[in-house]
Amino acid sequence: MSKLTIKLLAKELGLAVSTVSKALRDSHEISAETKAKVLEFANKHNYVPNPYASSLRRQKSKTIAVVLPEVADSFFSLAINGIESIAREKGYHVLIYLTHESVEREEIILGEFNSGRVDGILISVSQETRYGSHIQKVINSGLPIVFFDRVCDDVTTAKVITDDFESCYMATKHLINKGCKKISYLSISKNLSINKKREEGYTKALLDAGISTDENNMLECGPDDATNFTNILHHLKGSGRPDGIIASVEKLVPPVYIACNKLKLSIPGDIKVVSFTNLATSPILNPPLTTITQPAFEMGSKAASLLFKGIEKPAFNLKSETVVINSALLKRESTNF
Amino acid sequence: MSKLTIKLLAKELGLAVSTVSKALRDSHEISAETKAKVLEFANKHNYVPNPYASSLRRQKSKTIAVVLPEVADSFFSLAINGIESIAREKGYHVLIYLTHESVEREEIILGEFNSGRVDGILISVSQETRYGSHIQKVINSGLPIVFFDRVCDDVTTAKVITDDFESCYMATKHLINKGCKKISYLSISKNLSINKKREEGYTKALLDAGISTDENNMLECGPDDATNFTNILHHLKGSGRPDGIIASVEKLVPPVYIACNKLKLSIPGDIKVVSFTNLATSPILNPPLTTITQPAFEMGSKAASLLFKGIEKPAFNLKSETVVINSALLKRESTNF
Repeated sequence: MSKLTIKLLAKELGLAVSTVSKALRDSHEISAETKAKVLEFANKHNYVPNPYASSLRRQKSKTIAVVLPEVADSFFSLAINGIESIAREKGYHVLIYLTHESVEREEIILGEFNSGRVDGILISVSQETRYGSHIQKVINSGLPIVFFDRVCDDVTTAKVITDDFESCYMATKHLINKGCKKISYLSISKNLSINKKREEGYTKALLDAGISTDENNMLECGPDDATNFTNILHHLKGSGRPDGIIASVEKLVPPVYIACNKLKLSIPGDIKVVSFTNLATSPILNPPLTTITQPAFEMGSKAASLLFKGIEKPAFNLKSETVVINSALLKRESTNF
Repeated sequence: MSKLTIKLLAKELGLAVSTVSKALRDSHEISAETKAKVLEFANKHNYVPNPYASSLRRQKSKTIAVVLPEVADSFFSLAINGIESIAREKGYHVLIYLTHESVEREEIILGEFNSGRVDGILISVSQETRYGSHIQKVINSGLPIVFFDRVCDDVTTAKVITDDFESCYMATKHLINKGCKKISYLSISKNLSINKKREEGYTKALLDAGISTDENNMLECGPDDATNFTNILHHLKGSGRPDGIIASVEKLVPPVYIACNKLKLSIPGDIKVVSFTNLATSPILNPPLTTITQPAFEMGSKAASLLFKGIEKPAFNLKSETVVINSALLKRESTNF
């Protein structure tokens, strides 16, 4: 057989060219059976897509988009630096779009990545995002997407995540080892992929230690700082107050510290505190904060590397990639080391 | 006279259409005298530019660019939120470009704002930027630009700044009132417009209090955190150490606190510390940090408002606008209140 083109491929398989093209792009319009048939045949005969044909839409803008919930967070700002370090090497521009935790804005932003404005997308979803159909649609149109940190489980594409379950298990166990009997878990969204895993790690560590879980120890906070402070203050008042706190996002650290101060509760004497964060000020807080520190820069740079592979090598199968980079528990005075 | 077009305007003035067009855009190619003549005539006869002609390049993308040194800084992340709040109201997209404090990257980024990709630009320059010719060039091409926070004095366009001189004067005076005799000023770049003003405020306050200034008390730090820590540690050692510190950027706060801790110097007992920053963790540091807190959100939203005026009303003269929004000195334990 001469050099296998998509036309020949379609002819050999007795399918339309558009069907083969869609099957190779893993389009939802094509049945799993047909996809399997096309892929098997293409792999067997070492089919290599014509780079010019497949780059009609791609590799034109030399620009990638990063879609983020916010930038006022040490994880995301470090991740951006990781992304940019790789993009610079590759000679790509990076455009940053903020959803401000709104799924509506996320949908609008994704809806406008058409006509070659960008060659690929890195995304960490908003806290409101429950389903990824708006993301799947963009992937189906042929634009490569890589998730980092906050993912949608119903979307099949590359994901760069950290060990949220294990690190939260480890943090909870650390609090238990330090004598905590009543540990609260503070989150900003129950929907988020990462939050679910962290919550599972927390629950599992309690169960493994024979401590029963209690819904009252799970406090879901929101976007408004003043409301969060009021709710946290209320949570820390009274006889049922926790003796340990896990904050799943760094923005909850100031209200926790200030509420403890107001209530004259000593950290770590009365309450031990640990938070997921990459804050540079963690070691100089009063007291220094025990943190679950995520590999933010590495996650950003790894996600960007995968995306560029997906952009530059159309044969590279992005959807089979899931990379897990471990976080670290940095013990400081807020949990009595 | 019938409705005044640019053609009629040129004919009445005896000038070429291109000359009039450039004069109205304040191009550097046109002499001040000619510009004055054209503007006077245009104003006198209520010349209104044809919105379609002048929007050939403009109002097409519904997108503005924000060019920033970095995002891992509480000032810039809050300013972005301010910018986005206005852009959302106006139905505009915001693209964020990071220079990572490199003038070379800034020039590359600005060089690519052509062919209607964006309708206007908000910029805070890199610490390496000394001259704004690359920015002036973009303005001359007809794209409106508004500076915020870090400006180029040699570029004539709208600027939204804070009272850097006054607030640093106030902070230095506060340290003097608290008994400091040897106050150091820590910066990251002597070139920056804002740094010059802050340094002037610092020097003036010392002079007004009869304290002589000393080059050895001005420590210029750089982009590398480890080097900054070493230099700060060295600066705080020995008999000539300062009893007061003004940090002109928040990234210098952790190394100052950690160095003091390492040298067993008490804050505020041995050294009083104040920093320019919008960090949410300032009140929970050990000890709580006295800050010069900039109106970051307001500066961002004001700059965006001016830019949209410049985009939507071509007759609006952006270059005559300079808005100053005051910062606040928030006294906390690090300077003994």
